[in-house]
Amino acid sequence: MEKQGHKVDFGHLDVEALAGKIRSFEGVSRKRPIADIAAIFESVSDMYGDCVVDFGDDAAAIDIGGGDVILFAADGIWGRLIEKSPWWAGFTSVLANVNDIVAMGGKPLAMVDVVSSSRCEDFAEIFSGMAEGVKKFGVPVVGGHTHPEGTASLSVAIIGIAKKDELIRSDTASPGDVVIFAADMDGRTGPNSPYSFESLSFKDPATIRKMYEAPQQIAKQRLATAGKDISNPGVIGTLGMLIETSRVGAAVDLTKIPLPDVDVSFERWLLMHPGTGFVLTAQPKNASECIRILKSGGIEAAVVGEIKKERTLDIFAGKNTATVFDFEEEGITGICKK
Amino acid sequence: MEKQGHKVDFGHLDVEALAGKIRSFEGVSRKRPIADIAAIFESVSDMYGDCVVDFGDDAAAIDIGGGDVILFAADGIWGRLIEKSPWWAGFTSVLANVNDIVAMGGKPLAMVDVVSSSRCEDFAEIFSGMAEGVKKFGVPVVGGHTHPEGTASLSVAIIGIAKKDELIRSDTASPGDVVIFAADMDGRTGPNSPYSFESLSFKDPATIRKMYEAPQQIAKQRLATAGKDISNPGVIGTLGMLIETSRVGAAVDLTKIPLPDVDVSFERWLLMHPGTGFVLTAQPKNASECIRILKSGGIEAAVVGEIKKERTLDIFAGKNTATVFDFEEEGITGICKK
Repeated sequence: MEKQGHKVDFGHLDVEALAGKIRSFEGVSRKRPIADIAAIFESVSDMYGDCVVDFGDDAAAIDIGGGDVILFAADGIWGRLIEKSPWWAGFTSVLANVNDIVAMGGKPLAMVDVVSSSRCEDFAEIFSGMAEGVKKFGVPVVGGHTHPEGTASLSVAIIGIAKKDELIRSDTASPGDVVIFAADMDGRTGPNSPYSFESLSFKDPATIRKMYEAPQQIAKQRLATAGKDISNPGVIGTLGMLIETSRVGAAVDLTKIPLPDVDVSFERWLLMHPGTGFVLTAQPKNASECIRILKSGGIEAAVVGEIKKERTLDIFAGKNTATVFDFEEEGITGICKK
Repeated sequence: MEKQGHKVDFGHLDVEALAGKIRSFEGVSRKRPIADIAAIFESVSDMYGDCVVDFGDDAAAIDIGGGDVILFAADGIWGRLIEKSPWWAGFTSVLANVNDIVAMGGKPLAMVDVVSSSRCEDFAEIFSGMAEGVKKFGVPVVGGHTHPEGTASLSVAIIGIAKKDELIRSDTASPGDVVIFAADMDGRTGPNSPYSFESLSFKDPATIRKMYEAPQQIAKQRLATAGKDISNPGVIGTLGMLIETSRVGAAVDLTKIPLPDVDVSFERWLLMHPGTGFVLTAQPKNASECIRILKSGGIEAAVVGEIKKERTLDIFAGKNTATVFDFEEEGITGICKK
């Protein structure tokens, strides 16, 4: 079977149109309220002394002394996914939370949940999906809160632990770093959204846990300068968020992006939310070791671009170039607009 | 002004009817699904090795080594409160979470939130209420997730830190212990529910933080054998949850329960959710020191009963006695029915 990657006709790719589609993609535009929220809490942040990183990263890191930080994150699942498939909502909630900790080089410790629904059968399905996630990722759900009423909603928070000086943060990419795109390619279009790439439900726990140790290894050896979990904004949108908080720019060579062996268009692939996917930056000398570790964990990875000082995110294929975001004009989260 | 407590005619109190009202109170009956949830996650709990306590306590405690545990809890706010008053929902979410950590003798470290609403103005109000809570309690919000759509929902998770051997747990009360009821009496009926006793919005941060250090002191000196934050089930319902997980019973002398100097009926007071309130158990020899520490922090406290082996929760006033819960028959959470 011919690889999907071979089918992309980069010579005729309308890079400008692609940039526009990424910019206006709902997965990207939904990130805009972050700045307003951060501003509200900054006004009362005189007690934030123990917090190493907070808004804008996958997880907050709270310094507990002794060189350790507790990583702390929360994710909510879109109401429409819960209504469509409560089992998948439960499973996805675990996945999204684990990814937040893993992307920072941390070890996930435990989760708590808040679930509401007026339909009894939703609870059973949601918790069954979460229990499957617990089994696959080896991270327990240790408590929570249940509302037997209202429209369906599901929120999960997670904690993890990491060494303070080994954290993979979002705000630490520097000009001259290379950009690495890493994702588990062994998957298929998800059952509930054309923009989700499902690669975990059919894998056994040992395979998954091995995959999730790769970022921890990269963290321990301090091979990455920055990194972020690829979520709803897709690979380019996620890189955009990373460079926005790092106050840098990036140029991505579209022809270098690894493609899965499934029937999705190139444009769709760029907007997809992989089950396991990360954007990393590294000094050029460490890129090949990063890639080696990722691949040995079962994650496909390649250098796809580089970090630059000028604060735009540009994509190109050969001589066709377009700017997706200009952070001097407008941010994704707006968190670093000032 | 005459104290409300003087007005209770205990001689004519229908204790049996009161027991029935507590038993059928919505704040109590809403706790029933806990057992089913715990059962689902227990089936995949082979990786729960680091977790000291989980379902059934105010917060889970995860052993991170070196004698420390991370406390981890989540609370959701009832949808109807968010619709009625998003500011109070935000403020209450912080309060409820901080109480979960404080009740266990821990120091709160940080919170994350997941908020959804299709109304922009709700976000501003919710976050403004949360920011007020952050200021009052000195615990930062370090991250979260926002859904700009759907019906209003608000979930907050919190982490705290404590010494493993100083934890105030729910499942460790023993026959012969006394029961201490402790609550901040300087308050009024809450603005949004006849069952909430609001005592915090008008106090300054220094007063509040001093109050919340009292349980930490009791923990450090290991003066309590068990304890739990008084939440929606009210004082008797919360004691019921504590003795259920401790697999013991209790007898409460209604005439000993401290009353606030406000115009609420005795029955209402027993069903109220105080802003700051705890049920503690202690060996009789340590009760007076517990009470001294609580009072010096501004929390009214008194011995109101004792723990017994027979697994019923009985209330009495003079010779009038009634059984509120018989845990051999049915639990509140059902978590320890087996």
